[in-house]
Amino acid sequence: MAHLLSGHCTFTLPITTKSINQNCFSAISFQKCKSSPLTLKPHLRGRQNKPLTAFAISTISQENTSKTHENSDDPFSNPKNKKVMVIGGDGYCGWATALYLSKKGYDVAVVDNLVRRLFDHQLGLQSLTPIASIQNRIKRWKLLTGKTISLYIGDICDFEFLAESFKSFEPDAVVHFGEQRSAPYSMIDRSRAVFTQHNNVIGTLNVLFAIKEFREECHLVKLGTMGEYGTPNIDIEEGYITITHNGRTDTLPYPKQAGSFYHLSKVHDSHNIAFTCRAWGLRATDLNQGVVYGLRTDETEMHEELCNRFDYDGVFGTALNRFCVQAAVGHPLTVYGKGGQTRGYLDIRDTVQCVELAIANPANPGEFRVFNQFTEQFSVNELASLVTKAGEKLGLEVKAVSVPNPRVEAEEHYYNAKHTKLIELGLVPHLLSDSLLDSLLNFTIKYKDRVDTAQIMPSVSWKKIGAKPKTVSV
Amino acid sequence: MAHLLSGHCTFTLPITTKSINQNCFSAISFQKCKSSPLTLKPHLRGRQNKPLTAFAISTISQENTSKTHENSDDPFSNPKNKKVMVIGGDGYCGWATALYLSKKGYDVAVVDNLVRRLFDHQLGLQSLTPIASIQNRIKRWKLLTGKTISLYIGDICDFEFLAESFKSFEPDAVVHFGEQRSAPYSMIDRSRAVFTQHNNVIGTLNVLFAIKEFREECHLVKLGTMGEYGTPNIDIEEGYITITHNGRTDTLPYPKQAGSFYHLSKVHDSHNIAFTCRAWGLRATDLNQGVVYGLRTDETEMHEELCNRFDYDGVFGTALNRFCVQAAVGHPLTVYGKGGQTRGYLDIRDTVQCVELAIANPANPGEFRVFNQFTEQFSVNELASLVTKAGEKLGLEVKAVSVPNPRVEAEEHYYNAKHTKLIELGLVPHLLSDSLLDSLLNFTIKYKDRVDTAQIMPSVSWKKIGAKPKTVSV
Repeated sequence: MAHLLSGHCTFTLPITTKSINQNCFSAISFQKCKSSPLTLKPHLRGRQNKPLTAFAISTISQENTSKTHENSDDPFSNPKNKKVMVIGGDGYCGWATALYLSKKGYDVAVVDNLVRRLFDHQLGLQSLTPIASIQNRIKRWKLLTGKTISLYIGDICDFEFLAESFKSFEPDAVVHFGEQRSAPYSMIDRSRAVFTQHNNVIGTLNVLFAIKEFREECHLVKLGTMGEYGTPNIDIEEGYITITHNGRTDTLPYPKQAGSFYHLSKVHDSHNIAFTCRAWGLRATDLNQGVVYGLRTDETEMHEELCNRFDYDGVFGTALNRFCVQAAVGHPLTVYGKGGQTRGYLDIRDTVQCVELAIANPANPGEFRVFNQFTEQFSVNELASLVTKAGEKLGLEVKAVSVPNPRVEAEEHYYNAKHTKLIELGLVPHLLSDSLLDSLLNFTIKYKDRVDTAQIMPSVSWKKIGAKPKTVSV
Repeated sequence: MAHLLSGHCTFTLPITTKSINQNCFSAISFQKCKSSPLTLKPHLRGRQNKPLTAFAISTISQENTSKTHENSDDPFSNPKNKKVMVIGGDGYCGWATALYLSKKGYDVAVVDNLVRRLFDHQLGLQSLTPIASIQNRIKRWKLLTGKTISLYIGDICDFEFLAESFKSFEPDAVVHFGEQRSAPYSMIDRSRAVFTQHNNVIGTLNVLFAIKEFREECHLVKLGTMGEYGTPNIDIEEGYITITHNGRTDTLPYPKQAGSFYHLSKVHDSHNIAFTCRAWGLRATDLNQGVVYGLRTDETEMHEELCNRFDYDGVFGTALNRFCVQAAVGHPLTVYGKGGQTRGYLDIRDTVQCVELAIANPANPGEFRVFNQFTEQFSVNELASLVTKAGEKLGLEVKAVSVPNPRVEAEEHYYNAKHTKLIELGLVPHLLSDSLLDSLLNFTIKYKDRVDTAQIMPSVSWKKIGAKPKTVSV
């Protein structure tokens, strides 16, 4: 991963709505945009010469944006005046969120280095659903809704790029999904463990410095994970716990016991962000998200070119999504170990709702606010049982098997995590009903010919991770 | 700091005892070793060609070492059989520890990239005491005691270098001081904040992977800091706290509230290390050290070429040492803010004792053990008052003044931190008596002509840190 750490490219891509290719669904943008002028500038970190300027790819003129902003001085009084930068806006949660916020009237920019697409190439993986390039996604959205999403392509670990993006877009809120987000990926080998912690921790530090330097009032909405807490034998509170000890009482950050180098990177982020709220008066909301399932949001189902990615592989796939794919293709549901591992889960339609609620109700200056972002708890066995029953209704023969657990984790444990703060802000959850599970299963059946069963089994072991780079065979 | 992040040099320096220059005290080794063959190989991270091999600088033949190790199979039964790698062994605590362990009969290797010396050059700072090069320090030690300390010069963020050092030295214990250890340094500007977290977190990750890959039984003794805890309104326990909450009880990691990017980096390390103990069965002791004062240990006072560094500047100097220097030169003692800030303190002679106690009584496989390493608590005002009284006895006119606090911290707070575990292992503390303070003051008076008063005042502000690189004027 050395090349990912040591450099990146900044793209300047002048594209207009006119240049859209109606048939370029699922194609890589650089193939389809061959006829457009493309400038590719290698940009090595730490070089001494002048920084490159980052450009927004925009399908409306800057005039429109400016006009909207003349209506009111207070960006928080009207969503239409609020500029939201979605870092990692090309990913699973990020893309759905960018569209939802745009639909809601926010002025949205996506910042992404597209490295998630590179991971798929490198590991030989593929989304169950075909996904369009980010450029075509954004152009399609403009065609369908008339709404613009600006695009900044680059690496937030490169502060020059991030600074230019901030100065150009001037966000009122930053939603930060821009991290390597797979626990198994972070446990493949040393270089990926190091990449994950470097990428996530330094990227977030840069975001904090960019806010302090350029947009001190900007509200940071950071995606954390419920996995930061581990599985303590007491109730999990939302970020803080009041402790009475030897006759004295204080409310302190909830103790963290993360279970992978990825989860640890989010613990590190949380500590860093909390410090900058205390020391600099920044305002931040840490969304400790549970496991996300589902594919469709109202926005992504508007057109196949807006379709979200759907991961079912052993590295990026999450439990429920993977089980549905397994059921669809007649593969046994792979329960890791005893299956008593219990976690918080939520529908992707609730992810986008939660993020919007956080933006619409920002933290106060100096406040580091933590919400546990999930709607229901399930054990792996409970999920397997739900998918088995739903599959039977559809005439599928579904079996669950226990496979050796590739992770190091408790397989039977107490788990009771609080999650009331987002409900109090107005979250209306989409719970995992029979009908949702039916539609999710039907959806995976629709795409079952695209399933590569070789990707399903766990390929990364928590105990066997080594110092040498792991080369992945096809 | 980009150049520090992107590359380093590995040195191959064949030197024998014969080549020692009796007059090279305080000189830079490369000037004094001109006549020796010196190979300087630039080594860029991420390059594709063959890794460089790291060589130990040793003043005895490998035969001697091997012979000692034939005596017993169990390195833990006899210190003489125990090989201890001291990462950061050229620094303030590291050098004193390396000598103490060598004297005690351990087979010691120093691993250091000497970047602490570079920081002084870059910031225009200087130790109060003249310090010899690491090469001359080690040669002098050999001449005086007959004992060998091996030397590996390189950057532990470069895994190839670290791997070679591990394979060559085969440590039974690793004492890890090899981090950027100044809170103000980490708050100078964005690039130093990022450097500190990258250097400390990735360096420690590499050490963990090296232990897993090459020396799974090796005991990691990691220097943490009491600053990881912050100043909670309840008693500070040693690493863990038992919490009863909603009728259930668990013992969890003590919540952390670090107050600088440096302190945060150590919090991140603690979480990473704890995880590898759980997941891989590594054994580790985290020494949450208080503020260290003093200069001399029995070993460093054996010869002026063994003399330790003594920092009094606003970046690397710590409260008590700085106060003594201020008293010696007639500078007012600079109390930050109200002066009620209370911390744990210890004599450097206790630092070396504590580390040895941890090595001699290793953690069990899978255990992540935390000791609070300090002997007494003082507020800044109490220290100022002690130094004022001690100065008056020596005929010095000492005044304390409050200066605006450059940090963001509570200036009046509850503080009661436990520190019994090292006492239980046999630590006999050197408490801050009048006589010790007298000798420390006398010592600073001896060197007062070397004091640069321009270095004394705080130069780094927690609130004013910016994204742009801060150039330091002389």
